Amino acid sequence: MRPFEARVPVRFAEIDRAGIAYYPRFFHYFHVAFEEFFAGRVGVPYPEMIDRRRVGFPTVHAECDYRSPLRYGDLLRIRVSVERIGRTSTVFLYRVRTGRGLAAEARITVVCVDMDTFRPRSIPRDCLRVFRRHRTGSRARRG
Amino acid sequence: MRPFEARVPVRFAEIDRAGIAYYPRFFHYFHVAFEEFFAGRVGVPYPEMIDRRRVGFPTVHAECDYRSPLRYGDLLRIRVSVERIGRTSTVFLYRVRTGRGLAAEARITVVCVDMDTFRPRSIPRDCLRVFRRHRTGSRARRG
Amino acid sequence: MRPFEARVPVRFAEIDRAGIAYYPRFFHYFHVAFEEFFAGRVGVPYPEMIDRRRVGFPTVHAECDYRSPLRYGDLLRIRVSVERIGRTSTVFLYRVRTGRGLAAEARITVVCVDMDTFRPRSIPRDCLRVFRRHRTGSRARRG
Amino acid sequence: MRPFEARVPVRFAEIDRAGIAYYPRFFHYFHVAFEEFFAGRVGVPYPEMIDRRRVGFPTVHAECDYRSPLRYGDLLRIRVSVERIGRTSTVFLYRVRTGRGLAAEARITVVCVDMDTFRPRSIPRDCLRVFRRHRTGSRARRG
Repeated sequence: MRPFEARVPVRFAEIDRAGIAYYPRFFHYFHVAFEEFFAGRVGVPYPEMIDRRRVGFPTVHAECDYRSPLRYGDLLRIRVSVERIGRTSTVFLYRVRTGRGLAAEARITVVCVDMDTFRPRSIPRDCLRVFRRHRTGSRARRG
Repeated sequence: MRPFEARVPVRFAEIDRAGIAYYPRFFHYFHVAFEEFFAGRVGVPYPEMIDRRRVGFPTVHAECDYRSPLRYGDLLRIRVSVERIGRTSTVFLYRVRTGRGLAAEARITVVCVDMDTFRPRSIPRDCLRVFRRHRTGSRARRG
Repeated sequence: MRPFEARVPVRFAEIDRAGIAYYPRFFHYFHVAFEEFFAGRVGVPYPEMIDRRRVGFPTVHAECDYRSPLRYGDLLRIRVSVERIGRTSTVFLYRVRTGRGLAAEARITVVCVDMDTFRPRSIPRDCLRVFRRHRTGSRARRG
Repeated sequence: MRPFEARVPVRFAEIDRAGIAYYPRFFHYFHVAFEEFFAGRVGVPYPEMIDRRRVGFPTVHAECDYRSPLRYGDLLRIRVSVERIGRTSTVFLYRVRTGRGLAAEARITVVCVDMDTFRPRSIPRDCLRVFRRHRTGSRARRG
């Protein structure tokens, strides 16, 4: 399985007073990539997951290493893979590259919840199958 | 009744690539002032309005004249008044000042809706009373 | 010239407490469409316009009619055209459609400025030529 | 020295499709608290730091544990303290509480840079003195 990559442009609005992308904004980019991953690989758009199937993946832990600043006009290539899978939780790994190399690397731990009760539940089978295929391993790791 | 004024600082994140507050951001400032107006003058915080009383005021028309750019660190004084009141709709007037003078003037038309059906409904009495008191008139206009 | 259309998805983050896209967010969508218009039709990406050519188009007036709310997962088709061209200012018209029909219509007046002085200047020739070709007229108007 | 605490309300716009504050938004709250910390304790507003003194503190690492979701209308009390101080870098600790208890805890590592070159530089004396006084220790830790 080839690794999943989302392409996200850095917009005019996303630049802060220091002339670079505002650091909390990276986590938004990761969420956009996460949404794209659902549409592109799970085959269920995230809006459908949330609104119809009532399954969500809120974040319980997030961490990011910032390697180099993002500039206005950068086109980000965000590689999404899965580092660890538990019964209800999953650790996603995001690597952001621009034409200048690696810009950031992040690990986001999400927990699968029932959207009506907000309580943890087991990861749906179709998601689980796809998460497993995207585990950081031999091929995906090389990218 | 003295006019209502919200104080809102321009944050680091809100500056765009041109070094000034991103123009859509002004409408966010107006919404913040609107929320403050509910807490301060209607006496019902907007979260309670929306979540408990299930009454909301979505926007149907918005317009803004931008007079001078906002800089990082500006403390905005946003005067909120009411220009017109219909059965279900209300036109709010927002005037934004910084230490350098008038920065923007906006008219936002909202419609009162039932949050469960999203259908127009008459403006609740307590809101109506307060909206009327803040009509742009003699005293409020002078500001 | 066929009209220009940007495609912009409504993201998870952009939904407000009322369950619909936050109304100031529409103006961000218009700016995204404006950026895409520069890349796609003017042939000069907006970052290059701003950062290298030091020409910008800050907004002096904005107005929007909201026709129907946007939901999470909507894919917006934003048609960009030009309604009026002055020596330094231009009025852009944005029409937003979803699968359910027209969602919003907006007019945004921008002024061409020298980014170093922030003073009005004449619209560069290559921009002017493209703006003219996108004037709302016979063909573009029908959309 | 009593610990520094910023008060930040959760706004209408900041709630996502799941009905809670969007997780990247927490990092924005931390930045707001950071800006307040400069104004309140360092005695130099951050805009002055950036724009006049040309000293900035971009983030090189960020991590956050999310304990309980934030709702619309929550008033956050964000305690800011300093966990570690290097020659150019500082680790800030942020603890977010609502009326329902601890909502999140985060560590943000920033590096002091010269804003003209974006290169690391030693932390200015007045900042250093204040950072030291806010080290997580006996009194501050108890909060």
